[in-house]
Amino acid sequence: MFRLPPRNTGMSTLILKAIGKVHSPFLQAAGTPIQSAMAQGVEGSVEVFPEFVPGLQDLEGFERLWLLYWFDRATPAQLAVKPFLDQQEHGVFATRSPCRPNPIGLSCVRLVGIEGGRLRIMDVDILDGTPLVDIKPYVPQFDCFEGSRAGWLQNKGGQGVLADNRFERKCKARRERKRGVS
Amino acid sequence: MFRLPPRNTGMSTLILKAIGKVHSPFLQAAGTPIQSAMAQGVEGSVEVFPEFVPGLQDLEGFERLWLLYWFDRATPAQLAVKPFLDQQEHGVFATRSPCRPNPIGLSCVRLVGIEGGRLRIMDVDILDGTPLVDIKPYVPQFDCFEGSRAGWLQNKGGQGVLADNRFERKCKARRERKRGVS
Repeated sequence: MFRLPPRNTGMSTLILKAIGKVHSPFLQAAGTPIQSAMAQGVEGSVEVFPEFVPGLQDLEGFERLWLLYWFDRATPAQLAVKPFLDQQEHGVFATRSPCRPNPIGLSCVRLVGIEGGRLRIMDVDILDGTPLVDIKPYVPQFDCFEGSRAGWLQNKGGQGVLADNRFERKCKARRERKRGVS
Repeated sequence: MFRLPPRNTGMSTLILKAIGKVHSPFLQAAGTPIQSAMAQGVEGSVEVFPEFVPGLQDLEGFERLWLLYWFDRATPAQLAVKPFLDQQEHGVFATRSPCRPNPIGLSCVRLVGIEGGRLRIMDVDILDGTPLVDIKPYVPQFDCFEGSRAGWLQNKGGQGVLADNRFERKCKARRERKRGVS
């Protein structure tokens, strides 16, 4: 039997391991939908690494999943950001911006099917190759609070709102991808 | 100016830092509500460490927050678990169990007020002293998918469902807390 690696459970440094990878049509931030709710119909997939595949049992019964992932191409953390949906600056914790102190992304995608360790998903707003750290089932009775007051985001957004590159680190990998080097 | 620490952005090891701590009435898993939706009216607070307080600007406009935190007292990862709401085993990714490969918890709590770095919250289902890793605003148009099919969890749960200690690591700190050593 495969044994899962030991985890760091100390207070000061918390260590995550990628459990898989997200595949999507988006190679760079510019042009990527800013939320899964604004990415209806965009297809992608999740590759779960073989040692974690047994953890997927019974996931196929859920229409939607929370994906938790690592914003590996985000700019360093900023505490005040000008987000995509406003002209004003806001504290980063009052936004869903990727340039967070702990760059964990949270997207609610639609599950289309599972074949082994490959999940076919829709409504994808995640960059191709993003490290996946967790999958949780979306459960309306736990997660749905309709009419919850939403501060500066009240009624903002809509289908097809796309990001620009303001929160994207300019890295070698991205430049190579743009030049078509694999 | 305080400068945020550099982040690890590599693929294999992803390092988080606690940005604060959750305070709640719950000193052990047994008797703790298993979801915030089942913890209506339970009061607690979030202590955000001073260097991250500027990131809270404009958060007070939101009725609910996502808290992402580290399950620091969970048992080691299991890929198949028997969750609180069923007699059957399920893959850990089809549950919200804490004993995950990456032990990140996700709770949607109610925000009551903010004083400096202290957030007063309600509907708390988190153990006292839990390390906080992120705060995101709850935004119904991003997060609410009513009627989404929920597999084995369809229509399960209800007010006041409480955990037992099946996913709690028996650690020195817990034993001391039970003996009243601070």
